[in-house]
Amino acid sequence: MREVRVVLGDRSYSIHIGAGLAANPELLRTALPAKRILLVSNSTVAPLYASPLMQQIHALGREVHLFELPDGEAYKDVAHIQGIYDALLRLEMDRHSCILALGGGVVGDMAGFAAATYQRGIAFVQMPTTLLAQVDSSVGGKTGVNHPLGKNMIGAFKQPAHVLIDSQFLQSLPDREFCSGLAEVIKYALIRDVAFLSWLESNMVRLLARDQEVLEEAIARSCRHKAEIVMNDELEQGERALLNLGHTFGHAIETFTGYSSWLHGEAIAVGMYLAACFSASMYGLSMETVERIRALFELARLPVNAPNQMSSEDFLRIMRHDKKVKNGSIRLILLPELGRAEVVAVDESVIKTQLDHLMVKYHA
Amino acid sequence: MREVRVVLGDRSYSIHIGAGLAANPELLRTALPAKRILLVSNSTVAPLYASPLMQQIHALGREVHLFELPDGEAYKDVAHIQGIYDALLRLEMDRHSCILALGGGVVGDMAGFAAATYQRGIAFVQMPTTLLAQVDSSVGGKTGVNHPLGKNMIGAFKQPAHVLIDSQFLQSLPDREFCSGLAEVIKYALIRDVAFLSWLESNMVRLLARDQEVLEEAIARSCRHKAEIVMNDELEQGERALLNLGHTFGHAIETFTGYSSWLHGEAIAVGMYLAACFSASMYGLSMETVERIRALFELARLPVNAPNQMSSEDFLRIMRHDKKVKNGSIRLILLPELGRAEVVAVDESVIKTQLDHLMVKYHA
Repeated sequence: MREVRVVLGDRSYSIHIGAGLAANPELLRTALPAKRILLVSNSTVAPLYASPLMQQIHALGREVHLFELPDGEAYKDVAHIQGIYDALLRLEMDRHSCILALGGGVVGDMAGFAAATYQRGIAFVQMPTTLLAQVDSSVGGKTGVNHPLGKNMIGAFKQPAHVLIDSQFLQSLPDREFCSGLAEVIKYALIRDVAFLSWLESNMVRLLARDQEVLEEAIARSCRHKAEIVMNDELEQGERALLNLGHTFGHAIETFTGYSSWLHGEAIAVGMYLAACFSASMYGLSMETVERIRALFELARLPVNAPNQMSSEDFLRIMRHDKKVKNGSIRLILLPELGRAEVVAVDESVIKTQLDHLMVKYHA
Repeated sequence: MREVRVVLGDRSYSIHIGAGLAANPELLRTALPAKRILLVSNSTVAPLYASPLMQQIHALGREVHLFELPDGEAYKDVAHIQGIYDALLRLEMDRHSCILALGGGVVGDMAGFAAATYQRGIAFVQMPTTLLAQVDSSVGGKTGVNHPLGKNMIGAFKQPAHVLIDSQFLQSLPDREFCSGLAEVIKYALIRDVAFLSWLESNMVRLLARDQEVLEEAIARSCRHKAEIVMNDELEQGERALLNLGHTFGHAIETFTGYSSWLHGEAIAVGMYLAACFSASMYGLSMETVERIRALFELARLPVNAPNQMSSEDFLRIMRHDKKVKNGSIRLILLPELGRAEVVAVDESVIKTQLDHLMVKYHA
């Protein structure tokens, strides 16, 4: 078992990472900061893992109730947050109770937002079950839901009281979702850790086989990077924006394809590859490095090409509506070299030219 | 013009109090922390004050749009918060924009909650127009909405970036609402400032005549007390609970009467008087002091008797459901002496006996 500490004054907390820790009574005892707990999960994860976890919690003399959300990003809205409020109020949960999130990023974002806004804030513990949530969304306190006019438009910063990452949950994760999570792992290597990139190249085969030892290392290293960035810039005034490498392009792909056929990690893998290509032509990143990045994505079974039917105009039209746009130029995260990222405001016309050039290469 | 400073680290802010300051361009320039502003008001206040204020803001070269809520506590719910989100998104407000609340406590609570949760938090400025909001709810960062199963159950702590209190807004306030606000002013005197109590006794007639000079003093003194308490205990872990003097009884009256016929200040005036009576019989407060408190409420045209049809059983039934209840005893704020308040856990049976005794006296 490993521990990563997120130091944020009176909002500090620990992340514990290990195989089987969801069944560790001592850890659960210290991690759960309340007598009365609402376990928020979804219709896919709850049937697999809720019962044994609830038995563990009961055995500690705590009271725990299950609230099940439907599974999917489509339900990540204010109406379903109301369902969580209703459950909390019907159970007469007071402000000393806590919410335990068991599931992927959607469950964590929603449970966290409910915790941030129920009775002006109750405690909240993350138990992420997907690789994406374990290495990214469960750490750092971003919570929220979508609005018909924009993703994650309603939300709050709410740090969890504890994050418990059981890597054994990943055994039941479908392959495509597992690989989608690897995209965020690779992201940390690209923006701040070249040694980690080499390690990932050497260990990708064992990772894909879900070797617990290698998984634990990859998750802990990712969480350490995420924690460091959040400690430097909790409210995303600066450095935290670097975590958006590939995300502006990726969001455009997700929007274009209606958030259905592409997984988040797949879309941002393409986005990171596009950012690498931009970095090569505008910022002096070597083509050799671009090729190295492409090879790692392919090893991780992640795409690097945008959807065939998507034009550079499609990208720009959607990116213009993205919240990162300002005064005709679009802020991209680029890589001046491997292991270092920067925010760069790029003129729309330059983006268009670059994308046109890349699209021709792709579709040739 | 007076200034009260609320010192809370990076959430510190100023409260400015004065007659006509809503028309002071220099103050507006420094108080509004954004280029793009959504003015949130209601259907009663906006027709009176929104236009001149928006002209002032336009003259500063800022962009301002009006969003009008229907007037009343009945609309203080998540559905109407959605209306504010919709407006923000249709106007493409980004996270550097701000919300300006112009209205009473309901408008401030709702606008503040929208600001706390739009894009994980945008800036928020309070311009309260009722006495209740000017001396209480606009300061301290409590925001939120009601849920069918409980008042203020959904909310967040969100400190404003500035509070601008123009005492001239009070000229248009109906008498009953003005007197309701006086109940919160008297509360500060009862829990922590005997000299202020004497001042209020001497100046009540001028206050009721809405003499601007006396009003400014009463508001500034109230805000100073509220600010001190919030600085000591921002998240209501301790001292801040003393601000609930009379509120447990008062909420019971509001619930019993369906939040329609009684105003908040009227209900808590009765609640504070009941708390004073309890303090006399259980805590050694002199009957002379209880009489002095009763006389001041009557001078301020506030009631001290509970609704005729309300029994001690009604009080207890509702108070049991209140969030302040714990293990069969109910936490009340009592006054061991004038100017000092304490939280006391009182057994339900004791409350019943005391209330029975008081009810007989009332209804005799």
